[in-house]
Amino acid sequence: MGKDKTAGETRQVIGVIVRFEDCGRDDLHRIGMKGLSLAEMTALGLNVPPGFIIPTDAGFDILKGNIDIRELLYEVRSEVSRIENTMDRWFASRNPLLLSIRSGASVMMPGMMDTILNVGMNREVIASLLDEGMSEYFVFDCYRRFTRMYGETVLGIKPYKFDAATQDMLNHAGMFSEEEFDSNHHRKLADNYREIIRKETGSSIPDNPYDQVKEAIVAVIRSWENPRAVVYRNLRRISHDLGSAVIVQGMVFGNLDDRSASGVVTTRDPIVGAKQLFGEYLLRSQGEDVLAGTRTPKKISELQGDLFPVYSELEKVAEKLEHHFQEAQEIEFTIESGKLYILQTHTAQCTAQAKIKISVDMVNEGLLSKEKAVLSIEPESLDQILHNFIDPKVQMRSIMKGLPASPGGASGAVVFDIKEAARYIKQSREAILVRAETITDDVEAMELATGILTGHGGVTSHAAVVARRMGKPCITGCESMNIDIDRGEIRVGDLTIKRGDIITIDGSSGRVFLGTVPMRKTSISTEFRVLLSWADEMRTMKVRANADTPEDAQRAIEFGAEGIGLCRTEAMFMAADRLPAMRTLILEESSEERDRMLVQLEEFQRNDFLEIFRALNGKPVTIRLLDPPLHEFLPNAEQLTKEVAVMRSQGEAGEELRRKERLLKRVLSHQEINPMLGLRGCRLGIINPGIIEMQVRAVVEAACELITEGIETRPEIMIPLVGHVREFEWIRERLDNLIGKLMEEKNVTLHYRIGVLIEIPRAALTAGALAQKADFFSFGTNDLTQTTFGFSRDDAEHKFLHYYHDQHILDENPFETIDMDGVGRLVRIATHDGRKANSSLTIGLCGEHGGEPRTIAFCHSLGMNYISCSPYRVPIARLAAAQASIRDRLAAAETSPSKNE
Amino acid sequence: MGKDKTAGETRQVIGVIVRFEDCGRDDLHRIGMKGLSLAEMTALGLNVPPGFIIPTDAGFDILKGNIDIRELLYEVRSEVSRIENTMDRWFASRNPLLLSIRSGASVMMPGMMDTILNVGMNREVIASLLDEGMSEYFVFDCYRRFTRMYGETVLGIKPYKFDAATQDMLNHAGMFSEEEFDSNHHRKLADNYREIIRKETGSSIPDNPYDQVKEAIVAVIRSWENPRAVVYRNLRRISHDLGSAVIVQGMVFGNLDDRSASGVVTTRDPIVGAKQLFGEYLLRSQGEDVLAGTRTPKKISELQGDLFPVYSELEKVAEKLEHHFQEAQEIEFTIESGKLYILQTHTAQCTAQAKIKISVDMVNEGLLSKEKAVLSIEPESLDQILHNFIDPKVQMRSIMKGLPASPGGASGAVVFDIKEAARYIKQSREAILVRAETITDDVEAMELATGILTGHGGVTSHAAVVARRMGKPCITGCESMNIDIDRGEIRVGDLTIKRGDIITIDGSSGRVFLGTVPMRKTSISTEFRVLLSWADEMRTMKVRANADTPEDAQRAIEFGAEGIGLCRTEAMFMAADRLPAMRTLILEESSEERDRMLVQLEEFQRNDFLEIFRALNGKPVTIRLLDPPLHEFLPNAEQLTKEVAVMRSQGEAGEELRRKERLLKRVLSHQEINPMLGLRGCRLGIINPGIIEMQVRAVVEAACELITEGIETRPEIMIPLVGHVREFEWIRERLDNLIGKLMEEKNVTLHYRIGVLIEIPRAALTAGALAQKADFFSFGTNDLTQTTFGFSRDDAEHKFLHYYHDQHILDENPFETIDMDGVGRLVRIATHDGRKANSSLTIGLCGEHGGEPRTIAFCHSLGMNYISCSPYRVPIARLAAAQASIRDRLAAAETSPSKNE
Repeated sequence: MGKDKTAGETRQVIGVIVRFEDCGRDDLHRIGMKGLSLAEMTALGLNVPPGFIIPTDAGFDILKGNIDIRELLYEVRSEVSRIENTMDRWFASRNPLLLSIRSGASVMMPGMMDTILNVGMNREVIASLLDEGMSEYFVFDCYRRFTRMYGETVLGIKPYKFDAATQDMLNHAGMFSEEEFDSNHHRKLADNYREIIRKETGSSIPDNPYDQVKEAIVAVIRSWENPRAVVYRNLRRISHDLGSAVIVQGMVFGNLDDRSASGVVTTRDPIVGAKQLFGEYLLRSQGEDVLAGTRTPKKISELQGDLFPVYSELEKVAEKLEHHFQEAQEIEFTIESGKLYILQTHTAQCTAQAKIKISVDMVNEGLLSKEKAVLSIEPESLDQILHNFIDPKVQMRSIMKGLPASPGGASGAVVFDIKEAARYIKQSREAILVRAETITDDVEAMELATGILTGHGGVTSHAAVVARRMGKPCITGCESMNIDIDRGEIRVGDLTIKRGDIITIDGSSGRVFLGTVPMRKTSISTEFRVLLSWADEMRTMKVRANADTPEDAQRAIEFGAEGIGLCRTEAMFMAADRLPAMRTLILEESSEERDRMLVQLEEFQRNDFLEIFRALNGKPVTIRLLDPPLHEFLPNAEQLTKEVAVMRSQGEAGEELRRKERLLKRVLSHQEINPMLGLRGCRLGIINPGIIEMQVRAVVEAACELITEGIETRPEIMIPLVGHVREFEWIRERLDNLIGKLMEEKNVTLHYRIGVLIEIPRAALTAGALAQKADFFSFGTNDLTQTTFGFSRDDAEHKFLHYYHDQHILDENPFETIDMDGVGRLVRIATHDGRKANSSLTIGLCGEHGGEPRTIAFCHSLGMNYISCSPYRVPIARLAAAQASIRDRLAAAETSPSKNE
Repeated sequence: MGKDKTAGETRQVIGVIVRFEDCGRDDLHRIGMKGLSLAEMTALGLNVPPGFIIPTDAGFDILKGNIDIRELLYEVRSEVSRIENTMDRWFASRNPLLLSIRSGASVMMPGMMDTILNVGMNREVIASLLDEGMSEYFVFDCYRRFTRMYGETVLGIKPYKFDAATQDMLNHAGMFSEEEFDSNHHRKLADNYREIIRKETGSSIPDNPYDQVKEAIVAVIRSWENPRAVVYRNLRRISHDLGSAVIVQGMVFGNLDDRSASGVVTTRDPIVGAKQLFGEYLLRSQGEDVLAGTRTPKKISELQGDLFPVYSELEKVAEKLEHHFQEAQEIEFTIESGKLYILQTHTAQCTAQAKIKISVDMVNEGLLSKEKAVLSIEPESLDQILHNFIDPKVQMRSIMKGLPASPGGASGAVVFDIKEAARYIKQSREAILVRAETITDDVEAMELATGILTGHGGVTSHAAVVARRMGKPCITGCESMNIDIDRGEIRVGDLTIKRGDIITIDGSSGRVFLGTVPMRKTSISTEFRVLLSWADEMRTMKVRANADTPEDAQRAIEFGAEGIGLCRTEAMFMAADRLPAMRTLILEESSEERDRMLVQLEEFQRNDFLEIFRALNGKPVTIRLLDPPLHEFLPNAEQLTKEVAVMRSQGEAGEELRRKERLLKRVLSHQEINPMLGLRGCRLGIINPGIIEMQVRAVVEAACELITEGIETRPEIMIPLVGHVREFEWIRERLDNLIGKLMEEKNVTLHYRIGVLIEIPRAALTAGALAQKADFFSFGTNDLTQTTFGFSRDDAEHKFLHYYHDQHILDENPFETIDMDGVGRLVRIATHDGRKANSSLTIGLCGEHGGEPRTIAFCHSLGMNYISCSPYRVPIARLAAAQASIRDRLAAAETSPSKNE
């Protein structure tokens, strides 16, 4: 730093300034992203206006008074003289140099902090510029811009004051746009701005250009603390300790003449990924004009007509930058009198679809390795590819907002129940199911609907989970909505939405719109398939899907699942044609009748399993035996209580009352204070083995039938909610005997496995004992999270989790990302102890976390055999698993040389 | 073994028989307790009839055919000849020897297995005995006894067949008791018995005495498998693989003449512990006559008159045995013609009170070290000392049985609510509160009642926990009882018990009696205090008490608590005079009204804390801030729902309906699906800090007031349900600030601490992080057990835990004894990580397990600073903690020599 000090210097330079030539990637946290891009482009030999960086640490030191700004200015002067030499212009002198002073943090904070252009102007400089032959239009345009930026940034004057003055000028001139201004208007406007500054602050912009520089530098450093930047960082959990660097460069002017322009270009199309420059520019413009939207920019392709040589140079710059960064770039440039300057470059923000196409293309172009292509895609971004989505350019006002529970957009008529939904579907119209909350009875209506909107419940409520499994957009917890089913309407404040009115829901943002909203659907492209096939080659962990029905299973296979990791058998009882049998089974006192229902349900299950096994064609299917408490299959107790109370109070005493009383008594006998921790899972199987034996019979009979047909089947029977090895032993012994008997009857050898769903802390803590008896473990991280945190997610999500998030008590929702310190520690303990006790144990994870990339990386690091997620997230999981493998190999490669030392 | 084989032997001896002289303590599992006692007494030089033991392993081998019983008989013959030589009588010969063949397991199974006396009798032997001059009465008495025992034990004839024959004889002779029989009756009866055997089995007792021996040995071995023995072992979880040894001895005869007797004596009084022989004997009797109860035995003191020299010899034997075993002994003896033989000795079964007195006396007599005295008392046995208890001699029939939820007996009038209870108390009569189940509203009624009986709930239900805290007898889960409050009656089968009828409950056994039952109360004796003072010297772990009220705190101090480990502040809101304020606080929408209630409640709490701190006088008080979900303080939602439904259906529309509707709505808004895992504990404190701040203000103001008075106070504020370190930080920061401000206001320096109640798995798993912020940990093992197992104890105990117990899935109720493998592992992890992160961390345990000796030993092994339990269990905990320390030292002493090797 400061290697070649100018001879005339007398004061010691502090040595804090960093030159573009002297820094690189390791300095990112000090020089910021913008600084780094300038350094790298300088190193690449691109035409970057000369300049230097005051790094973040120096910025803090300045604010704290550890560095005297006046001392710093000696160093600044010395660096400015380097710029002067390079550009052959002279600051605060004749043939004057102006400076651009920009902010630049080490994380992306677009538009959050401040920039001041054209620093160094005063009356003498204006005169010099005019003397030099610059046009009045240009000079006063620069002066006006400088005055305003300085006023806003250094002096803190509100932008609307300047806007009002500009509007006055337009009105006065009878004009509609600033484009129409001539040099006089600019001069006049600059004067008016100066008047505003005088009025507002009682002072004026210093004439001394170095005073301007000093104030501008401090203002840019301070802009790290401006309210919108603080809010932005809070929202994105960016540390407030990073600070902003200050970038000082010689000005180049896109507003100098008709062969000057400024613009932004992406190296490839960021919407679809096509390999062509994409962007906009404005002739005779400076800096932010393109983004400001006050003038309509031209498409970049038109530059070929305006300034052909520059366009072709821009293409070469794009190629060079892509080659260097191995990613599509968004480039800010300025053309001064036909000469191209590059002011910034950063990774282009692309749609997932575009990103994939670009990465695959780059591999084919030899720019990128397959590994890097696979690493370049954010797995979560695939989510938008697989759903309709609201066109992000749409600027409609939403009528209410709930929780984004299942991504994608959907429009349709408001319906409140399955009958209404069916009516619309018959008319080939789409329907949005609106409910206070959904229960298991609603699953069929959800199947019919295009989207789901609920008044209560969190993003892991019943509605949300089912919707995600179905891949349907869903918003939950829309608490501002009042549903009046009797009147067939929803009220939101003063607004009333009637049954059949069209609404649109955006499950990705939680917004609800009245009417229809333009929607887009990205199809699964060839590149997407190619990328996933690369991912499949690279990953070591298998990916299965959670699928409860033959349809789900089919979908899972289409998305590339290598098996089913969780088939919730009770889902098969929830269908309208099966629920009555299930209810009879639970409530009936006659054992004959119960047996008849068991036979009926077994028939249903066998047929479902036949189809599922057929779809899987030899891939493993993990079947979880009956898990929920029985009351979930029963009618609502509160409703019955009311009915009985009313009938009694009205003196009724007939058979109907007695029937209802009996029913209520039975229903109440199944109620529990904390059903989540009550009689369910394997506990139910032990107290009442009839149902799970029926389920296993259905599994085994279906499997044997297919094996006889020559179709391989690999059922894996999973026992839920095990907390003690003896629970597992008790059930396993019973099931092994039953299956043995059935195989003998059918004369078929079935390769089945029996394992444990680890979803209770005690199961994880005693995994060593369990592993000795079990063929596999699967982590049910939904319930494991509930019990490890002591959170009932039904209660927690709307009662306190949002507040915990606001208060930074929990940065992540543990039902979305696995909680590494608590739940993760249990998973680690259980994986370690389990493998130690039984080296052939298969270990997987089937909670909703199974589709979440960080969780997938965690599972990979523990050496799990597979993860299982909803069918729609299978591609995400395939990609995330591949990334985890690649990162593992890269880390190993980094450490292996040291091993050889 | 078999050292001195007789010369005449030709066959090789198998070498399985063990002689009394050749075995000791290490052989217990092979020779059984009876065998061991005979071996030890032989070694002590006591007059034990000579004999030998066929060990348990040989027994199994015989049953499995691994040992040929005929081979064994060669060895038996050789050993019998040793007995012959010693006793100078000859088996199956003139001057005949008879044998006693008894069972003997390595665990106490009194009366469960079989014994055959007088083996070796046949016509020739009878003739020889008569020839020898034995009385006919004696000889035929022996023969009759032998015939019956052989018939029952070897041939499996039901006892009642012989009883019927005996009764026939009595009837025929016009007699009332067998005592009246003469020798003819005995002879006749023996013949009748033989006739029964012939009829029942078609065969007869073999004449060959060695055949008798062979069959008797096999029968005794087999008696291990008899149904009552199997049931006994099942109930007590005794392994079925232990087996019984067979003890063969020469017979000595308590029925020989008037100077002969048999009896049982304890070396000290087993009821009160006085140092004097205690027991009974019967002249002219054999074996089990004393226990059989068919003749009325004499008190042992009378033996001084009957056979004075023998009595004084017996005293010497008692002293010798006590000296050897260092425990009071129960001794079986036989006196044959004035000569004393000892047949067995084992530890006497004493009341806890007696046991304590005996141990303390033995220390004073120099028989026992203080350590051994402390170790000799089963901590759990202290429980009976501190409660009234039903006289165990009472043989009344109970009318129903529930779960023994809180020990002790109580009689009183049946009452259903607090008003009725108050009425009886006013009349100085006692009341038993009967409820379907109790809720927080019932606490005051429970305070008034003498005992509590509930229809539902387990031994850790609300009623049970509160009753134990109050030290009141309680039975829960008495499911056979139908409570009809409207009619004011309970129905149990055909029986109807009306309000005001007197019942007695035995909370130690779960039995309910009609009317009053004799009760005993043991006072805290001097010896008890002495023993506990020794325990206090020996233990390293402190003992605190769980106490919620000033009364509880006072009681805790009286029982020796060294602080309060858990003061549940919400208990202070449950009192009848406070609940309305709490309800208003929760339900009121006006914040002014809420603030007014906060002020009221703070006043209540401050006064309570003043009294508690005063009672503790400088000892630490751990105060848990508000923990339960708010709905626990609210009216019953189901009742309100019914009322509103009825009012609506009847067309009511007035203010009362609207008021109820509003109330219902507010109550429902506090309902949760799984309240155990919902908005409670620190979550409530974070969402709604007003209440806990009020509580802390009350604590600090009370403490400051006392400090100003010169009374030391050490409040420790405990945050419940913490799962994440940031929850704790959030609250701690707020409370530290508040307390700092209050100290400044009062100008008092208060030494307070703030810590974490570890009751969520995640807290244990992240204990390292928590310990860096907390001053102490306390394990709340009730909730930790619920969340680690995923058990809601409210639901689990009556829905499946009993079945899990029956099926041996869980041998222990994890809510009673800490589950070492699961919950214990978490406690171990947290203790380890906590201490590592913060070496000055205080660690304790305050769950209900805190009073359970195995848990206390576990806590000691982890190096906890204290455990805390209900006041009534403080003495148990003091003793158990001392035992853990002593065992630790003993183990260290055992291993330390090996260190020096």
